[in-house]
Amino acid sequence: MKLRFYNARIMSMVNPGEIIQGEIHIQDDTILYVGEEKAQENHSWDREIDCKENLLMPGFKNAHAHSAMVVFRSLCDDLNLQDWLHHEIFPREAQMTGEDCYELTRLANLEYLTSGITAAADMYLTPETIAEACNDMGMRCVIVSGLNKFGPPIPVMEERFNTLNNKYDLVSFKLGVHAEYTCSKELLEEVSKVLHQYQVPFYVHMSETKTEVEECRARYGITPVALFDQLGLFDFGGSIYHGVHTTKEDMEILKRRGISVITNPGSNAKLASGIAPIEDYLKHGITVGIGTDGASSNNCLDMFREMFLVTALAKLKENDPAAVDAIKVLTMATVNSARSMGLDNCDVLQEGKQADIIMIDLKQPNMQPLNNIAKNIVYSGSKMNIKMTMIAGKILYEDGKFADHIPVDEIYENSNKILERLR
Amino acid sequence: MKLRFYNARIMSMVNPGEIIQGEIHIQDDTILYVGEEKAQENHSWDREIDCKENLLMPGFKNAHAHSAMVVFRSLCDDLNLQDWLHHEIFPREAQMTGEDCYELTRLANLEYLTSGITAAADMYLTPETIAEACNDMGMRCVIVSGLNKFGPPIPVMEERFNTLNNKYDLVSFKLGVHAEYTCSKELLEEVSKVLHQYQVPFYVHMSETKTEVEECRARYGITPVALFDQLGLFDFGGSIYHGVHTTKEDMEILKRRGISVITNPGSNAKLASGIAPIEDYLKHGITVGIGTDGASSNNCLDMFREMFLVTALAKLKENDPAAVDAIKVLTMATVNSARSMGLDNCDVLQEGKQADIIMIDLKQPNMQPLNNIAKNIVYSGSKMNIKMTMIAGKILYEDGKFADHIPVDEIYENSNKILERLR
Repeated sequence: MKLRFYNARIMSMVNPGEIIQGEIHIQDDTILYVGEEKAQENHSWDREIDCKENLLMPGFKNAHAHSAMVVFRSLCDDLNLQDWLHHEIFPREAQMTGEDCYELTRLANLEYLTSGITAAADMYLTPETIAEACNDMGMRCVIVSGLNKFGPPIPVMEERFNTLNNKYDLVSFKLGVHAEYTCSKELLEEVSKVLHQYQVPFYVHMSETKTEVEECRARYGITPVALFDQLGLFDFGGSIYHGVHTTKEDMEILKRRGISVITNPGSNAKLASGIAPIEDYLKHGITVGIGTDGASSNNCLDMFREMFLVTALAKLKENDPAAVDAIKVLTMATVNSARSMGLDNCDVLQEGKQADIIMIDLKQPNMQPLNNIAKNIVYSGSKMNIKMTMIAGKILYEDGKFADHIPVDEIYENSNKILERLR
Repeated sequence: MKLRFYNARIMSMVNPGEIIQGEIHIQDDTILYVGEEKAQENHSWDREIDCKENLLMPGFKNAHAHSAMVVFRSLCDDLNLQDWLHHEIFPREAQMTGEDCYELTRLANLEYLTSGITAAADMYLTPETIAEACNDMGMRCVIVSGLNKFGPPIPVMEERFNTLNNKYDLVSFKLGVHAEYTCSKELLEEVSKVLHQYQVPFYVHMSETKTEVEECRARYGITPVALFDQLGLFDFGGSIYHGVHTTKEDMEILKRRGISVITNPGSNAKLASGIAPIEDYLKHGITVGIGTDGASSNNCLDMFREMFLVTALAKLKENDPAAVDAIKVLTMATVNSARSMGLDNCDVLQEGKQADIIMIDLKQPNMQPLNNIAKNIVYSGSKMNIKMTMIAGKILYEDGKFADHIPVDEIYENSNKILERLR
């Protein structure tokens, strides 16, 4: 399968914000060429797409999500994290089946595609059916273990690590735990042993709320970041999700261990958890990526909204309108999120990289006039600007329509049935 | 012209958040019927629209904007209000012509239509050409005088008041001034005399930044709200725009005078001006509406983004996830904004009201599952959910296309030419 995009503006993100005019060639799942217009030498393309001067760029990577939580959208709003989690979410999740997760992951994937998200890091209940849902749709997915003291034990995580990292082209599986407050110290020590056996990055919800940090201090006398560092869980890199309430010492640990922070501003705002110190992270040289979190706490899976929130909330927090500018945010939502998820082959548009590409519709009023396109995307962009979403060389969403193999009506119908059961 | 919407969900906003199944009938610009399915008695409709169970609701009203500032989108970002205004905006505005304003207002109107905004309160340079642009497109517009010591004098404002309130069906003109810091006290006293002559509401940017309030205190020993109250400018109601930095005493004045606060959270965040105390306004019984402000400081004209920001920032400011819930926000963006703009006949969907109606596409992944539609709109909605925008009984935007009489490509082309000149 050979495909050619021509007459395009291209923001490859190799030099963030830089835009060229040219074309992109793709063979199967791989980018063959990104550059200026090229003379055609009897190429036989399966499809040639006139981009009409719209913009091609790498797909957004959603570096932290709980995809199947779409079923809880607008079901239990206006609560703080602990009440929401313990009284509304956990009891309902206890009734969810693997089949539910399959269906609801498909619904979340539809939303990702409309928002130009080409991969999600998904920490949720049944990795096997999540993987199946993504494989069936053609969605790239990094499943992250959400191990905790209430769920399946370590051998299950290890089994998933060995199985799901080899079963599907588009799916990988990462080691991690849900959070400090849902794991005993003994459990974390055991996880650390597994981590040292495989020598791989580690992922965890951390320092999301003030209460969480205070309770950890009460239990162990140190912050969650310091605790996990002591336990050796940060020895091979990885990410912490949220990182709203961290100290200077925490930041030094994160920097030293090469741990990235995945920020989830929509969720943190809606649950009143606080504003993450993004400017401080950047000053410490810590890599920041962006996630939507789950639709129950956000309530949408929209990278445009998250990008604007990252910069807008940073400006408010720092009392500085120059804080965390648009180009930094674009880098977070593409390159940084990709690398934090272990998707180094999906970070930029370049020969040899995976063809995870989106087309931004510039002929919409919110992108006009065409002064600074990169800034427009962050400060003014919207889901309505996603003209096409391609993953691994396959177009899954184009001009408002999903690819033929995706049964949209069936997904809506089944999701509503699951809602009725869990409500 | 008789039109029937059937097979619809309807959120009339008569009882905010309540949704019925039924139909809406329209004759010319007026709503004839809103209610349950009705037996058809040989009606001859010019058009019948099957809503396929999508949602009809009142259009959003953008209660504060500078529409033609779309030309400055992404041109001068990451600056504080005073630097941005004095060094970037004012010098460029000095070069703008009435024709420029005509063209750029049309561009802003396109964006409003894609966001379900059916009327904007526009304070900008050349009211005559703004009115013409809106009349030509079929956009409802409330033009607000931005009188200040650098611009046209009071007789021009009075002339516009008398002319533009009678020239076009869809256009009205309100008395107002730009801000305390751009008017002398003598000028404000003169404006107050005009206001008392006509006995009409008054509109002004007020208490947007801390600096603005401090400088007013230094000049007059009191806050801008107290000053304008003393000068009698609040005697007939009206609105203040922004209201980010107000005191308890200010709030008591606003409540007593029936002055509404129009909040502009996107702009206030991007310029790092602060978070308006919305929860306090509501506790004081002050009416709050929502505006996008201009695209130069926001940078988009998207009521969905503003609605989410109103609630999300309130939750952060109050450290309370229950602050300013979705239904309150929906009321602000429709009913409150409409009434604050003097559009009492466009506030809800009801017999005899103007047919300013939008259709929300519920068959998009961000609206599924269909648990709580009103909450979905505020917490998860996006421009991509606007399936139709109707103003005064005319459909101007439907399924991603603008009405035939709107020359979209010409508007983009001309706007880019103006940008090149002003850049």
